Amino acid sequence: MDTSLPIITLTTDFGLADAYVASMKGVILALAPAARIVDISHEISPQNIVQGGFTLACAFPHFPKGTIHVLVVDPGVGTSRRLILARTENHFFMGPDNGALALSFAVEPPRAILHLAAAASIRHPVSATFHGRDILAPAAARLASGADFASFGDRIAEFTPSPLPPPARQEDGTILLRVVLADRFGNLILNLREEEYRRLRPRASAEALGLEICGRRIDRLLRTYGEAEESEPFALFNSSGYLEIAVSSGSAARVLACSAGAPALLKA
Amino acid sequence: MDTSLPIITLTTDFGLADAYVASMKGVILALAPAARIVDISHEISPQNIVQGGFTLACAFPHFPKGTIHVLVVDPGVGTSRRLILARTENHFFMGPDNGALALSFAVEPPRAILHLAAAASIRHPVSATFHGRDILAPAAARLASGADFASFGDRIAEFTPSPLPPPARQEDGTILLRVVLADRFGNLILNLREEEYRRLRPRASAEALGLEICGRRIDRLLRTYGEAEESEPFALFNSSGYLEIAVSSGSAARVLACSAGAPALLKA
Amino acid sequence: MDTSLPIITLTTDFGLADAYVASMKGVILALAPAARIVDISHEISPQNIVQGGFTLACAFPHFPKGTIHVLVVDPGVGTSRRLILARTENHFFMGPDNGALALSFAVEPPRAILHLAAAASIRHPVSATFHGRDILAPAAARLASGADFASFGDRIAEFTPSPLPPPARQEDGTILLRVVLADRFGNLILNLREEEYRRLRPRASAEALGLEICGRRIDRLLRTYGEAEESEPFALFNSSGYLEIAVSSGSAARVLACSAGAPALLKA
Repeated sequence: MDTSLPIITLTTDFGLADAYVASMKGVILALAPAARIVDISHEISPQNIVQGGFTLACAFPHFPKGTIHVLVVDPGVGTSRRLILARTENHFFMGPDNGALALSFAVEPPRAILHLAAAASIRHPVSATFHGRDILAPAAARLASGADFASFGDRIAEFTPSPLPPPARQEDGTILLRVVLADRFGNLILNLREEEYRRLRPRASAEALGLEICGRRIDRLLRTYGEAEESEPFALFNSSGYLEIAVSSGSAARVLACSAGAPALLKA
Repeated sequence: MDTSLPIITLTTDFGLADAYVASMKGVILALAPAARIVDISHEISPQNIVQGGFTLACAFPHFPKGTIHVLVVDPGVGTSRRLILARTENHFFMGPDNGALALSFAVEPPRAILHLAAAASIRHPVSATFHGRDILAPAAARLASGADFASFGDRIAEFTPSPLPPPARQEDGTILLRVVLADRFGNLILNLREEEYRRLRPRASAEALGLEICGRRIDRLLRTYGEAEESEPFALFNSSGYLEIAVSSGSAARVLACSAGAPALLKA
Repeated sequence: MDTSLPIITLTTDFGLADAYVASMKGVILALAPAARIVDISHEISPQNIVQGGFTLACAFPHFPKGTIHVLVVDPGVGTSRRLILARTENHFFMGPDNGALALSFAVEPPRAILHLAAAASIRHPVSATFHGRDILAPAAARLASGADFASFGDRIAEFTPSPLPPPARQEDGTILLRVVLADRFGNLILNLREEEYRRLRPRASAEALGLEICGRRIDRLLRTYGEAEESEPFALFNSSGYLEIAVSSGSAARVLACSAGAPALLKA
């Protein structure tokens, strides 16, 4: 395998039944035959910018330096929303500028961002409804093949911020959190990273989390699923560093009747 | 990556849970270790020849010259239905001769078709129920490795036509169309390509489509999703060139209570 | 493609929506850039050890000699369950020692088994909840890159046996079988291989199977789906050699209202 070419990852809400993902791969491989393509996820809920952005943000840090991440969750295709290409310390990112990429930029900040010009695409004509195939895929293939970053468009200074709200301190001192997503196991992942929790709660005990979520109070903050009691919801910081509510051998989403978007309150 | 070997694509109704797809890949890689395999879709509804054929027909034109496309939606496995191998200007196709491949042949006509002989397989014994693994996978691996096209079987003159009916002009001048499939976003894709529409309606205005579908009349023919009004069904020609009924930020399949196979009438 | 590196296959219950599978791939490719990764299945039902083990056992024999199979269905992550690495005649296997790998060992017995030491991982720190990413993925990458098998841990003599019971002769001479899984087509796969059936029933006729399953008696043992009568359940030995109950152009699981885990009785 020609490992001199960077990996291209794909994250979309296209699903795996239709021809959309394969069409992007065909375009990439026609332009960069030696490209290695890795799927992050194509099962993002249709047009769910937060889920798409969060999923890529959890996965990308594990990829080698120089990887190109293409994120297409694009409710605004055909409107005036722009496409961007960004360079961070170790990675490249491209996709619609709708806030989804901002979740990765929170992990590794951009050093340069370009307004990706359609003209940089070498696929003509560009369809009005499938910029993933007609602009992003050829741009990723060209970038992987060694095209100069600066040639893809004009520098811009700003990007659309993440639609996922950060933890917010309320007037009464409690901290308002949000369920980002429920994973396949029914684990509920919240918008609070361990570093931030330790800063907010420097002297917290493991038995005093004090989280109200979907009508239930959760106090136990464990280190592993194995320490939990069967069918009892508990909290841990998961393998990506986020606060997670889980039920051992069960689904917290089902036990708590709770899903993405639900609020949660951390006591003061 | 050894890009001298052509890509092999796989389109099946095997799903992604069971061992079937991976078994085909194992067979291919055991015979052609440097083969590059790309999944088109394995989420074709079980035994849905039209969906499998249409999905490949939308995806294959984006792949590089010389790609080998294996299509296995095979309700007739174990009957006398034959397997075929075809060469078009830019691609190779193989699969059961049940009409599914005919949808790709409508896009790029075959220059030669062979009755793929099981003896050309180098995997013994051949199971009675999994020709994808035991005949098609090894044949694809051998073809990718440089085996001579003519060595795979005897030339045949005909192939089973597509089960998807073409647009049909009725006695009253209306044109009877059919919903080919509903994609993941709930977009309804019809069996009418833009070129054919322009030929049928050389002077059509964008506001006078006149399509009756699932009890609803749709007149607006737009260029992008972004031009639409929220929750109002509209039509456009999609990124593969087919007439599509969509709802901005919604699902046309749900709004119109309409799914694959439904008829639609285009006014005279 | 550098085919001197062995293939790494992945079988998990992580699903394809979340970042878990891609994170493992990122870790592997960061350590072994030329590794070729093939997905067996990520749609194993959460924590279903039998389904995960059976799916890998059906797929692995088709892969080339030297392939490394990583199986992660791991309800015990964070408990004292150990991870193992095994070498068989043609393959390597790694995963939690919970019985899932035992289904592959029944097909190709292990020649050596190691207790996989976390220290052999070169990823630090190791999370408490995602050993697939933090121990197994880096170990697979190192093994693929040529690290010495013996360097991964201490030899052990035993492994946890399969939780799938073997066919069991009852006092009245009948043989108790079990539905291992229902595949995507609704075919019901039983824990009885053809060789074992021929040994139990050396003089069996094709019309006298005598299987009681989910309240129905099935006597026809056919060779292909094509010989069956529409909508009539029948039996065959499938392409992996297991007894399977199927319905031509239909779903045996639905027709018999039967699913994984259901018992079945083969007459004496």
